[in-house]
Amino acid sequence: MKQSFLLIGISLFTLSLSGQEHKPAGNDRTIEFPDIPGYRSLVCDFHMHTVFSDGNVWPSIRVEEALRDGLDAISITDHIEYQPHREDIPHPDRNRTYELARKAAGESDLLIIPGAEITRSMPPGHFNALFVEDVNQLMDRDPLLVFREAKRQGAYVFWNHPHWTAQQPDGVAAFQDLHRQLLAEGLFQGIEVYNELTFSEEAVELAREHHLTMMGNSDMHGLIDWMYDVANGGHRPVTLVFATEKTPEALKEALFDGRTAVWFDNTLVGKASVLTPLVEASLKVEKIRGGLVPALEITNHSDADYILENASDFGLHNHAGILVLKAHQTTLVEVKTREEMESFTLRFRVLNAFDSPHTHPEIELRVD
Amino acid sequence: MKQSFLLIGISLFTLSLSGQEHKPAGNDRTIEFPDIPGYRSLVCDFHMHTVFSDGNVWPSIRVEEALRDGLDAISITDHIEYQPHREDIPHPDRNRTYELARKAAGESDLLIIPGAEITRSMPPGHFNALFVEDVNQLMDRDPLLVFREAKRQGAYVFWNHPHWTAQQPDGVAAFQDLHRQLLAEGLFQGIEVYNELTFSEEAVELAREHHLTMMGNSDMHGLIDWMYDVANGGHRPVTLVFATEKTPEALKEALFDGRTAVWFDNTLVGKASVLTPLVEASLKVEKIRGGLVPALEITNHSDADYILENASDFGLHNHAGILVLKAHQTTLVEVKTREEMESFTLRFRVLNAFDSPHTHPEIELRVD
Amino acid sequence: MKQSFLLIGISLFTLSLSGQEHKPAGNDRTIEFPDIPGYRSLVCDFHMHTVFSDGNVWPSIRVEEALRDGLDAISITDHIEYQPHREDIPHPDRNRTYELARKAAGESDLLIIPGAEITRSMPPGHFNALFVEDVNQLMDRDPLLVFREAKRQGAYVFWNHPHWTAQQPDGVAAFQDLHRQLLAEGLFQGIEVYNELTFSEEAVELAREHHLTMMGNSDMHGLIDWMYDVANGGHRPVTLVFATEKTPEALKEALFDGRTAVWFDNTLVGKASVLTPLVEASLKVEKIRGGLVPALEITNHSDADYILENASDFGLHNHAGILVLKAHQTTLVEVKTREEMESFTLRFRVLNAFDSPHTHPEIELRVD
Amino acid sequence: MKQSFLLIGISLFTLSLSGQEHKPAGNDRTIEFPDIPGYRSLVCDFHMHTVFSDGNVWPSIRVEEALRDGLDAISITDHIEYQPHREDIPHPDRNRTYELARKAAGESDLLIIPGAEITRSMPPGHFNALFVEDVNQLMDRDPLLVFREAKRQGAYVFWNHPHWTAQQPDGVAAFQDLHRQLLAEGLFQGIEVYNELTFSEEAVELAREHHLTMMGNSDMHGLIDWMYDVANGGHRPVTLVFATEKTPEALKEALFDGRTAVWFDNTLVGKASVLTPLVEASLKVEKIRGGLVPALEITNHSDADYILENASDFGLHNHAGILVLKAHQTTLVEVKTREEMESFTLRFRVLNAFDSPHTHPEIELRVD
Repeated sequence: MKQSFLLIGISLFTLSLSGQEHKPAGNDRTIEFPDIPGYRSLVCDFHMHTVFSDGNVWPSIRVEEALRDGLDAISITDHIEYQPHREDIPHPDRNRTYELARKAAGESDLLIIPGAEITRSMPPGHFNALFVEDVNQLMDRDPLLVFREAKRQGAYVFWNHPHWTAQQPDGVAAFQDLHRQLLAEGLFQGIEVYNELTFSEEAVELAREHHLTMMGNSDMHGLIDWMYDVANGGHRPVTLVFATEKTPEALKEALFDGRTAVWFDNTLVGKASVLTPLVEASLKVEKIRGGLVPALEITNHSDADYILENASDFGLHNHAGILVLKAHQTTLVEVKTREEMESFTLRFRVLNAFDSPHTHPEIELRVD
Repeated sequence: MKQSFLLIGISLFTLSLSGQEHKPAGNDRTIEFPDIPGYRSLVCDFHMHTVFSDGNVWPSIRVEEALRDGLDAISITDHIEYQPHREDIPHPDRNRTYELARKAAGESDLLIIPGAEITRSMPPGHFNALFVEDVNQLMDRDPLLVFREAKRQGAYVFWNHPHWTAQQPDGVAAFQDLHRQLLAEGLFQGIEVYNELTFSEEAVELAREHHLTMMGNSDMHGLIDWMYDVANGGHRPVTLVFATEKTPEALKEALFDGRTAVWFDNTLVGKASVLTPLVEASLKVEKIRGGLVPALEITNHSDADYILENASDFGLHNHAGILVLKAHQTTLVEVKTREEMESFTLRFRVLNAFDSPHTHPEIELRVD
Repeated sequence: MKQSFLLIGISLFTLSLSGQEHKPAGNDRTIEFPDIPGYRSLVCDFHMHTVFSDGNVWPSIRVEEALRDGLDAISITDHIEYQPHREDIPHPDRNRTYELARKAAGESDLLIIPGAEITRSMPPGHFNALFVEDVNQLMDRDPLLVFREAKRQGAYVFWNHPHWTAQQPDGVAAFQDLHRQLLAEGLFQGIEVYNELTFSEEAVELAREHHLTMMGNSDMHGLIDWMYDVANGGHRPVTLVFATEKTPEALKEALFDGRTAVWFDNTLVGKASVLTPLVEASLKVEKIRGGLVPALEITNHSDADYILENASDFGLHNHAGILVLKAHQTTLVEVKTREEMESFTLRFRVLNAFDSPHTHPEIELRVD
Repeated sequence: MKQSFLLIGISLFTLSLSGQEHKPAGNDRTIEFPDIPGYRSLVCDFHMHTVFSDGNVWPSIRVEEALRDGLDAISITDHIEYQPHREDIPHPDRNRTYELARKAAGESDLLIIPGAEITRSMPPGHFNALFVEDVNQLMDRDPLLVFREAKRQGAYVFWNHPHWTAQQPDGVAAFQDLHRQLLAEGLFQGIEVYNELTFSEEAVELAREHHLTMMGNSDMHGLIDWMYDVANGGHRPVTLVFATEKTPEALKEALFDGRTAVWFDNTLVGKASVLTPLVEASLKVEKIRGGLVPALEITNHSDADYILENASDFGLHNHAGILVLKAHQTTLVEVKTREEMESFTLRFRVLNAFDSPHTHPEIELRVD
């Protein structure tokens, strides 16, 4: 084709590339997702350890990791029943890590949620209790009594790594009788679908069937930077909590209400009712040229590289049916609308988001 | 100073740079895909221009671009009927760019295919004729006579950018009567589905319906490095040709036989009969742990970031249902086989590969 | 030492690192130096070739390279006597490249200076004549007549690559009788000290002794991007011209007056009278803490990584005697003033700047 | 989940990451310098803290940091007299961190040297005692008695951060009477010239005058990765010890004998007797072209970007008088020898190495 077309091509492509928001890899590790209509999107990690159980750092390091990752809330959940450093730290008050973390957080706006890990063999396995009043009251030989005490204290409780091969050798999360009993008594409300480096689609299915809140956490014992190769752009699994405000109370209310999504491995997992608005809020569309083949710039204001399958009535002029919108970048999209339109709507399935083990939420982008 | 000194300068400087122990991003621009069973995978660009039509460089630059990109074959396809530099280059022999490119390629193993662009208004639009014997014979007012002469010379002919908005304002590739006549006479055999920065799913559909060979080319007038932002990892569109050997004859035979795939924008387009073996040849699987949850390392030896949808009987322990295998990296995949198995097979749909506008090839990975 | 000191250390170090101005490597290739008191610092390349002599690109590519590099002025200096593309471009008007470059520059603010390369065997070798009125008048068998015609046209003339081993086998630039005669007649005014990838300290010495203007140019035949590995942060040699304004007239006046510095290989070469203000203008100092060991942030607004030798009365608290101020970054400098001072002056020798083959300019940074 | 699972996670994840074919910046943090004739170059950090004094990590983290940095030896030197975590760790055995670190180092070849920090107000300030037999014996109100006990145990003792502004407000390291007395009694042998982020040229001068061994250490309380921005290529200060073999005994012998260099901020500090062989051992020269202007490739096998001032009889053809040889890269150097030579010697002053506050070692590179 001739020169004139070439020049248009250059200028559009340049626009697309110059749209980078980010600094060089490793420079900015903040985990970023936009708020959604009606809720703030709080980035949280509710599962981690310190020298007060079997972790390797003082609570202050967990706080600084969280600040560097831009988290809104953490809970340090040291094992209640497992204290391998007892020789050096002989009388651990189970509320101590919370106190030390609160002190370390100081004037920052990081929320520290009191928590602990109920650490039992299977069944029931390991559970985290958040928003507890006094962890020292959660020590009893009978796990049922411990769960009932947690409930009495108003705790939000979730099942940790139900797919952990040390307790579930085939890695397939499944309820046993005790889990059904706990559920029947209202003794837990959530379940981890991502833990550390692993995922469980069976846990996603259990969450759907039993209306459990989906959680994703680091379960950190060593250092976030090393486990997740932060220097090369990695990050920990987090639970995005959609809360009316950034307070412990609103956080707790959202967890009981199941308003979460889990973010790890470039994958979002949650109910479609939060995933669809989250992806739509991430994407800003600007029409930069009209006509028969209008041109749009779509800017992705989130950390996810969205993998979109075109489900619109229209084909694209500069992309095939799978469109990847890279994190914090602007992508040029030309649409073959076949006739000139004042406004139109693009529809996409978000392939790296799951509202069940095998289904994806859909989004709509209105172009005016 | 004169050219001879320049060349000394280049070779020494290159030596100096190649000594870097840590390769910075953007240093290695070679386009790499593995061979497939029975065929070599030749990386080709069959559409580009020089100062001898409306391009901005001497043919030697096109050759060096190709060498830097690691291409196996190129054709310089200057416009036959469009010579805007005629004032300075008054009597262009239409075979001249081929001669100069051959000379520039020298002892390298880059194949230079003689070619030219038949440049007409729509219909029929622009067509490239490759493997022509004498381009000067392809000048006649009647396009039909030109196409017939090309056929007489044994040329392989393909329709360029059928979706070019300068000739097809809505960007929707479609046959007109003249195209059907050309096809009926066997006067062209291929069609571009990617051209420069644009894609046409309608062209993919036309290729399927009419057994046309799918092509993807740069149509370069300026510089590859600038148009495709090579400094940041970009590359030109290329046609992968699956040929029995790296010779012009085998290349021509493969083109007439429709054995191509097109690579651009992290997308592969072609028939499933070549896409499936291409993706399978790209991936090497090594079992590094057995048991109930075996662990595999899958190494991707191609330039594509493969976006795979798990279609296996098994879930994964460390990934959700969409698995991205990054180019030239090794990815750990843990599989929940539920029982210990000596060997098993994983199945995936390759979402960034298309054998029709909306369908994807499937691959199988055998694990022993 | 105790915790309290550690925390101060962290915050200062972070300040230093966060001071990066630049985008990722390869993204921004503009060559940037600040203006100096009384003059604009114009970034220029006065030596390059196109298909109209022995180069490989159309003049428009030279213009776009210059625009991408952020240059203020270029001159395309095709060989007058060497026309290897004569077979295809049979009657080259020697003013043609200037016309085509002017047209390509269009509405941009890039200055195109008419020029040509007088291309003779040694002596006198190759010379560039800039600001010529009609290059076609510069063709005569006797080089003296050509130089006199250039002078008649008001040209600024400089000796190219006096150290070129094809003409000076030991690479040691030296005058022969003809050069002295040319100089005596006022027929040239400048000399290249950097050409393409090479440097001549003997040329620097000749410039000093004979009051010649120092020049540094690319002498480009192929592509800037390839010769200088622009993808990895490289750039061409340039002549910084310190002119009263950005006009051809002011540029010419500055060249005749010797107000240049040459920039390549992280090295600046020129008279101390321009180097000292150039480095001082590059550096902004901000005192961020007072006391016995005041802390400064020094921001380097130039492309040079300045290598400074401390020549102050004071030692530094966080650096040894050699301080490197990286391009477009902010560096924390703590000074041991031994007593509290309202204001003080730091002095440095700039080791990567040369005002003679072996001496460096000095700078002063006032701290208030 | 418990620690055992974490370790599986790490090892698999590491396997996955090591499969990358293109190593991104920041992936390889090993500190690398070559051995010198007669000695191994051991990379050491002899000053750091854990939760057992005022640090924030368990000793195992210090061991893993050291392994990731490729160190040969570390000493954890918790404060003897300062125990801010006493409330949680009530009865700290002062030898405990050594025991835990030894256990964490396991089968690795990292040497763990027993050590502790004698923590006093000025004078004498803080001193580290290495190779101690029982730290618990080093507690006495009178510092002299503590130093004598350290000597009785055979310890190697060095003065920490003599320029610490909390104890020396002007940052100028200087002896007081007590220091002279300690020295007269042979109670310390070394002095830090780099500590954490700071440098003292007065400490370098004291080392020279009093034959003290020069030390450089991190004094880490938090995390190496954060303090030194390891993600972007930073590293801790280290003491390079030139020992006959990699054993605690040889290390101790070298420290008493003063065979060290300190590496930080792209600066090496030490005696010329070790710096000259260290730089020479870092550089391999290969002649790739002879003639009047021979071409060399100089490969720098160290982490230092060497800043060299040409002190040869010859000028360079492609560099000015300051030559920077980047870490782990090969640099082309063309030499103007003026006559053809079978062999010749290049001489350079190493400007980023110091054998006194203001003098630099010289090196010779033989070219055959």
